[in-house]
Amino acid sequence: MASLTVPAEVPSVAEDCEQLRSAFKDLLKELDRELTHDFEKLVLIWTLDPSERDAYLAKEATKRWTKSNFVLVEIACTRSPKELVLAREAYHARNKKSLEEDVAYHTTGDHRKLLVPLVSSYRYGGDEVDLRLAKAESKVLHEKISDKAYSDDEVIRILATRSKAQLNATLNHYKDEYGEDILKQLEDEDEFVALLRATIKGLVYPEHYFVEVLRDAINRRGTEEDHLSRVIATRAEVDLKTIANEYQKRDSIPLGRAITKDTGGDYENMLVALLGQEEE
Amino acid sequence: MASLTVPAEVPSVAEDCEQLRSAFKDLLKELDRELTHDFEKLVLIWTLDPSERDAYLAKEATKRWTKSNFVLVEIACTRSPKELVLAREAYHARNKKSLEEDVAYHTTGDHRKLLVPLVSSYRYGGDEVDLRLAKAESKVLHEKISDKAYSDDEVIRILATRSKAQLNATLNHYKDEYGEDILKQLEDEDEFVALLRATIKGLVYPEHYFVEVLRDAINRRGTEEDHLSRVIATRAEVDLKTIANEYQKRDSIPLGRAITKDTGGDYENMLVALLGQEEE
Repeated sequence: MASLTVPAEVPSVAEDCEQLRSAFKDLLKELDRELTHDFEKLVLIWTLDPSERDAYLAKEATKRWTKSNFVLVEIACTRSPKELVLAREAYHARNKKSLEEDVAYHTTGDHRKLLVPLVSSYRYGGDEVDLRLAKAESKVLHEKISDKAYSDDEVIRILATRSKAQLNATLNHYKDEYGEDILKQLEDEDEFVALLRATIKGLVYPEHYFVEVLRDAINRRGTEEDHLSRVIATRAEVDLKTIANEYQKRDSIPLGRAITKDTGGDYENMLVALLGQEEE
Repeated sequence: MASLTVPAEVPSVAEDCEQLRSAFKDLLKELDRELTHDFEKLVLIWTLDPSERDAYLAKEATKRWTKSNFVLVEIACTRSPKELVLAREAYHARNKKSLEEDVAYHTTGDHRKLLVPLVSSYRYGGDEVDLRLAKAESKVLHEKISDKAYSDDEVIRILATRSKAQLNATLNHYKDEYGEDILKQLEDEDEFVALLRATIKGLVYPEHYFVEVLRDAINRRGTEEDHLSRVIATRAEVDLKTIANEYQKRDSIPLGRAITKDTGGDYENMLVALLGQEEE
């Protein structure tokens, strides 16, 4: 039995055309709205000052949880310690709550155990490194990670409290002493392990972290505009040039071209403007 | 057999006197040095600006641990959220480390679980209160405290992240709903329970907290000068008048008189000066 039916009164070609035209018109309106929405969101986050922007992004992340916990990790780990404090201050003013309060309230278990100290941290920002400590703590990390004790108290203490310079020294020693890259050992499909990876990358290799987010956002079917907008808006005038260079090294296509292939209209123009001139 | 012996050659009265005089002289020198030490320490902490002072006091506390964990609680809970952030900033500059880094490194178990989020907190400072939340969280606190689950994740989350105004509403509801004062339920002789008491008092009833520290410091044999100096120097020009009034209500003796009875010299004079004029 045919599943298609013909109306009792067959419409004229003109009527068909009109119906198709109006259906497409609605579709285009939707598409247009969608594009405008991406553009408007990008304008919104770009026009905020950096601490306001981080407070806004963090709040958006706390509305979705799980799926966007890594945005919290990104804000907590890739900003300077002082920038994070200013973002927390802006979060108070916008939400009448503290960031750690919302994070702690809405998470449990290992996620809470990692996220709360990360967003609460005010790390020392200097370059001094204690090599004896780097050695001792790389040993601790190696033991725990090799045992897959990913959420161990000591792992979280080290990652959540040590300065970025100190962590860099610790991870260098890790590689030298144990011949393994800690990130390679964190490739399980587990969501918590993915957060731990993002934590380490965000703290010690922020450009690589951002390249990974951009590749993921651009290469996905349909593009993840939120992630694309967030990275471009927050890194423009910070380290976006370096990120674009790393991107091109990694994907053999300039970041600008990858973006224009996947976006359009005002949204595309603004992303490209934020990216600035690049060598192609 | 007598335990006292007489020298073969008995000294003359003049010789005895000379020996006694020089022994007393040394004793007085010691006493004098002791007094000067207290005076100097008081001058030192008084002349620092408040955030530098807190950074100094916190560092001193991290050198002794256990015995002085409550000084960390005091700094984390009785200062305004912004003052705590400034103290953490000053701590970086003095120690090339973060406060939470030192606290997390030197503590374990329940103490770490409570102290790290307390010193890392940047609470919302506004007066807004969510009564529905106060009700829900007073229930959680009552269940956990009644079960003696003092270091439960939820107890620590509530105390370490909620604003002071919100905690005040929660504890008021606690008293109204359950007819019990949470502080009365925290009178075990356990050191962790004492820290939890100090946390709650410091956050919600800071003047009572300081009166308790002062009474303890003054009434102890020999006086605990460190605690006395710390409270007087950090609360002068903040809320020392209120604290002195509470002290007199509680002990029926003006704080100034209690202090002059137990101290002397420049140290006494400076404490009294910091205390300002009081009604006697």
